[in-house]
Amino acid sequence: MSTNTVHLDKKMVELKTVNEDLRNERMKCTFNQEELTNFIDGGAENTDRKRKIANFFFSDPRFKDEVPVEYLSHQEHYEQSVRKACIFYEKIREWEEISNCTILDIYDLIWTSGIDTAILKQSIPFAVHTTMFLPSLIGQGNQEQKEEWVGRALEYKILGTYAQTELGHGTFIRGLETTCTYDPDNEEFILNSPTLTSYKWWAGGLGQSCNYAIVLAQLYTQGIHRGIHPFIVQLRDSETWMPMPGIKIGEIGSKMGMNSVNNGYLALNNVRVPRMHMLMKNSKVHKDGTYEKSPHEKLTYGTMVLVRVLIVKCLVTSYLMKSATIAIRYSAIRRQSELKPGEREPQILDYQTQQYKLFPVIATCLVYNCAAKWLWDKYSAVTSQLDLGDLDQLPELHAMACCLKAVGTADASVSVTSCRLACGGHGYMNSSNLPNIYSLSTATETYEGENTVLLLQTARFLVKSYESVQLGNFMSASETLSYLKKYNSLKRSSWTTTLDCMSSAFFQVAGSKIDDCYFTIKRLTDSGMAQEDAWNQTSIKLIQASEAHCRAVVISFYLKTLEMNHFSPELMTVLIQLGELICAQWILNRLGDFLQYSNLKPNDVASIQSLLEDCLRRIRPNAVGLVDSFDIQDKILDSTLGCYDGNVYERLLSEADKSPLNKEPVNRSFELYLKPFLNSKM
Amino acid sequence: MSTNTVHLDKKMVELKTVNEDLRNERMKCTFNQEELTNFIDGGAENTDRKRKIANFFFSDPRFKDEVPVEYLSHQEHYEQSVRKACIFYEKIREWEEISNCTILDIYDLIWTSGIDTAILKQSIPFAVHTTMFLPSLIGQGNQEQKEEWVGRALEYKILGTYAQTELGHGTFIRGLETTCTYDPDNEEFILNSPTLTSYKWWAGGLGQSCNYAIVLAQLYTQGIHRGIHPFIVQLRDSETWMPMPGIKIGEIGSKMGMNSVNNGYLALNNVRVPRMHMLMKNSKVHKDGTYEKSPHEKLTYGTMVLVRVLIVKCLVTSYLMKSATIAIRYSAIRRQSELKPGEREPQILDYQTQQYKLFPVIATCLVYNCAAKWLWDKYSAVTSQLDLGDLDQLPELHAMACCLKAVGTADASVSVTSCRLACGGHGYMNSSNLPNIYSLSTATETYEGENTVLLLQTARFLVKSYESVQLGNFMSASETLSYLKKYNSLKRSSWTTTLDCMSSAFFQVAGSKIDDCYFTIKRLTDSGMAQEDAWNQTSIKLIQASEAHCRAVVISFYLKTLEMNHFSPELMTVLIQLGELICAQWILNRLGDFLQYSNLKPNDVASIQSLLEDCLRRIRPNAVGLVDSFDIQDKILDSTLGCYDGNVYERLLSEADKSPLNKEPVNRSFELYLKPFLNSKM
Repeated sequence: MSTNTVHLDKKMVELKTVNEDLRNERMKCTFNQEELTNFIDGGAENTDRKRKIANFFFSDPRFKDEVPVEYLSHQEHYEQSVRKACIFYEKIREWEEISNCTILDIYDLIWTSGIDTAILKQSIPFAVHTTMFLPSLIGQGNQEQKEEWVGRALEYKILGTYAQTELGHGTFIRGLETTCTYDPDNEEFILNSPTLTSYKWWAGGLGQSCNYAIVLAQLYTQGIHRGIHPFIVQLRDSETWMPMPGIKIGEIGSKMGMNSVNNGYLALNNVRVPRMHMLMKNSKVHKDGTYEKSPHEKLTYGTMVLVRVLIVKCLVTSYLMKSATIAIRYSAIRRQSELKPGEREPQILDYQTQQYKLFPVIATCLVYNCAAKWLWDKYSAVTSQLDLGDLDQLPELHAMACCLKAVGTADASVSVTSCRLACGGHGYMNSSNLPNIYSLSTATETYEGENTVLLLQTARFLVKSYESVQLGNFMSASETLSYLKKYNSLKRSSWTTTLDCMSSAFFQVAGSKIDDCYFTIKRLTDSGMAQEDAWNQTSIKLIQASEAHCRAVVISFYLKTLEMNHFSPELMTVLIQLGELICAQWILNRLGDFLQYSNLKPNDVASIQSLLEDCLRRIRPNAVGLVDSFDIQDKILDSTLGCYDGNVYERLLSEADKSPLNKEPVNRSFELYLKPFLNSKM
Repeated sequence: MSTNTVHLDKKMVELKTVNEDLRNERMKCTFNQEELTNFIDGGAENTDRKRKIANFFFSDPRFKDEVPVEYLSHQEHYEQSVRKACIFYEKIREWEEISNCTILDIYDLIWTSGIDTAILKQSIPFAVHTTMFLPSLIGQGNQEQKEEWVGRALEYKILGTYAQTELGHGTFIRGLETTCTYDPDNEEFILNSPTLTSYKWWAGGLGQSCNYAIVLAQLYTQGIHRGIHPFIVQLRDSETWMPMPGIKIGEIGSKMGMNSVNNGYLALNNVRVPRMHMLMKNSKVHKDGTYEKSPHEKLTYGTMVLVRVLIVKCLVTSYLMKSATIAIRYSAIRRQSELKPGEREPQILDYQTQQYKLFPVIATCLVYNCAAKWLWDKYSAVTSQLDLGDLDQLPELHAMACCLKAVGTADASVSVTSCRLACGGHGYMNSSNLPNIYSLSTATETYEGENTVLLLQTARFLVKSYESVQLGNFMSASETLSYLKKYNSLKRSSWTTTLDCMSSAFFQVAGSKIDDCYFTIKRLTDSGMAQEDAWNQTSIKLIQASEAHCRAVVISFYLKTLEMNHFSPELMTVLIQLGELICAQWILNRLGDFLQYSNLKPNDVASIQSLLEDCLRRIRPNAVGLVDSFDIQDKILDSTLGCYDGNVYERLLSEADKSPLNKEPVNRSFELYLKPFLNSKM
């Protein structure tokens, strides 16, 4: 079906069955939605590819759940997920053949548009096979190893996971306890889990869905400890799927969400693997046990950064856009209370407090969309430079990936919650999809680098850069830190609520906070405190400085995007309103910082509050148009409240009737428990 | 078992099996924990009663889940919940006979200590029977009706619910669409659901667990619309449990949590009930259809206030204390990363950022404990006055119940989330119990009055009172608003980080914000805007004023409590530290307000930040002692991470092994889906 046909169909449906309030909202939209959609997607071609791949996946009837997964037992849910995951990966392969897309582009499209979690709501049991197992084989195996393993993994002859985190060890990789000792007599490694806390824990798919894992372990050769290295370990027999000798394995149990990821645990008891099962692109162990250290340790760094970049690029904006779409459309059809006696109950979207909860989320979607594009371009540029041996911009990339991942995922989770609460009781229904989006979103606050730890990593870069500026030898390479040289001079001008003035205030705050951290640490160390203790004693300020830096940079990316693109005047007007709104909102949220550190004076605060309220009023007529431009189809939204046609109440009832409890007039618990209870003497 | 024996046993266990880090923490505690426990519980006698009733319930083996509920299907979960709920209510009746407690005291103890959600994790299918059905019969039935219904309900011969909210109608009760028309020929009422949006929706237990409901409907007699009234409707046949004629009924489906509440929907199609099924304590319909209006409409108001008071008293502090206990104990045993090279990995409780996430939650527990006590006393006092016909203090009680419910439940949900995230990945495991506590906690933000709506109700009282002060006729009755007369004069003094100075700053902020709202609305109406529009255009400021008022009053309650009680010097020191911490935290969170409206100057901000950091350091040695004083036993915490003995990793593994997926080495999905997939040509 061509994109045009889809659009014609939409129009037909609209006339017949779309909720009247939503129809009216759509007529009010002042800009060309397709223009915004194409901008968000990074071009009309991408929009087209996105729609085509979505149609390809959602036209397959095998993905339909007879009973929504929420009603299944944990085990049934897992089994259904394995069934659907197998079909899902087959279809990816099919699409690779039909379309002219590379496999990486396909994954990018799937993740960014959320096709994966539309089909497998609580995520995919084999996701780690493609996101970590395969990339590790490719990135850390030598030529011989790649020849042996990569093809089999690419063709799904084996399914693998990546087992790093342990029951007692997460963030601090050097603290891992799993051991791997080389036995030169047999040319084998012997892997062991010496303690309970060394059990591998959390690896996706490890429970029941993989037969191989890359296991990270402390290597010992010739009696010497050599640090953490990756080893390929077979977990299950390929024919019977029974655990291999010495392998104790299982899933880690039920979680807040992502229950079809099948996260698992693993204990190793004298498990022997051949010498060539250590991935040896970098460090090597020779037959006699001689250890050869990697010449370039920094290069493993890259994969870690990539995953954080992808979280920002694909997940943050996807969770934000879905929940904004659901809450805005619902608020347009929901009518409640009275503004004026005797008048019809107003759409709740007309309440200022509701606009205040939701419109900043729309703006948040767009600023992170721009930040993600910057980060992706930066990542591509830095990786190309890396190939030429140029490591200069790696620290900045790393620092920005850390803080954008941390602040972006935290903002997403808060926004999803705000959207859910804005939908009242119905937002608490799983059929709204908001609880599930939250459980996916809040997981990103912890995985692939816990947010506080990441903010402290960014802070290390900020303080170091600030020190360079102090010492007069600032690297010109750091585009995002150029403000460190000038933020102080910005303070002199008087306040206006222009985007330029507000954006400059963000830099003043960020610069001052980094300055404060630097001198706080200096004071403490000058007074005799150890550097590490001084760092810890300043860490609340440090994470706040990282956050301020991140927000300043995100705002500046957005403004640069407005400058650099040729938007139509109608769209430009709306994009400026959203920019003003998010500036006003972020300033008011951290008003104390701006009063302390920027040229904002107490007398100016009322002007920001007015700007905020004014933006809400101006955005109001375009609210539905904006979320429609996010162009998320119903199958992906998967929400009774957010559906395009706004027939919310019909869907709530028909979803309720899918509950197995509603399939029979009387549940057996009546005869078993209730009747005896009602007839007993109480 | 006496309380003493329990304590002896605890000591014995401690020496043998308690995690060493936790043992060391406990030795550092500087105050008498039992003193704090008794204060929190409202006296040693209450502590004793609490422990006894907990032992009574938890010694019953019938409450044990063979398989944790997270692994069951929705239907199995419901059936198990009905089974346990029947036993639960039987035991309440038994305890009423054994102990000398009234039924109300028993419920109070159960809710406050969380025995109910320890036994029925996602709450109770018949809860509404006791919290709303029975109280409505008692409060709104006339003598004849009470004689007919109350006994049967008390003895669980019938099970009822309270059906008010509709699919399309929540907050705005006048907007309900269900109709009830009186037919004088048959002396019957005829109930109907005229639209889809009029379907009753959300009532707890309505799905499959009740045979009666009090249905709220628009009454029509003699062709005239008489407004909303309550009617007793039989839903299901008592012998067969089949729905009665004209009744369409079912559950509303799966939710974010509280899935054993069995919330239901109900459609009525010409359902006839006898005239005496309208609850007639207030308004009446006579045989011929003559309608007699209630003389005192304000009195129905009381039940609504009571439920909000109970949410603050029983739920807010319970969710806060549970999550603080879990996260603090876990942070004491969890060791991660390195502060100094070569040293042992530190307890994560030693990181300043971790203390910053968790210690304010401990303080939040205590300030809301004091606020809840004030609110309960106020409620009791006002109800006694009501009985004497004195309505003077009702508006203040209503306003305080609204804002304490709104701010308290919002703070609780944010704190629970903070605790969960502070536990890293393991906090995402259901076995930590943090996800479940969150799902219960965030529900309270919406039910029994959506928080934004409640804050606006408080704001109405604040603005009205402010107007009275302006007009010079302020009622002396409003204890919590006495600051309106003096907050301006407080501004003159200079800043110190004493509790007195900080507490006064909260009043300055609240007063100024109410002042700002009042004059904003006045300006808008003076310029010709309708009052209702002016109110809506000011509503962001209004909810912020209510929140500021609430925080000011909560802080003042806490300080009064410190003044009025005779704490030991050791405990007093710690309570002051916690008071300073929460003041510093709340001021820094809304720093802009304090810089604008209080005597705090930009140069003073560093002193508050220092106070905050200093409090974290001083509280550190007592952190575990403080949460131990919350005195929540393991069966109630129900958390692998929070258990008293700190054997976290052992419990995580043994909980994981309860997953049905871990009961067999190979799941059937291997033969069904995985094997064909691995062997297919990809």
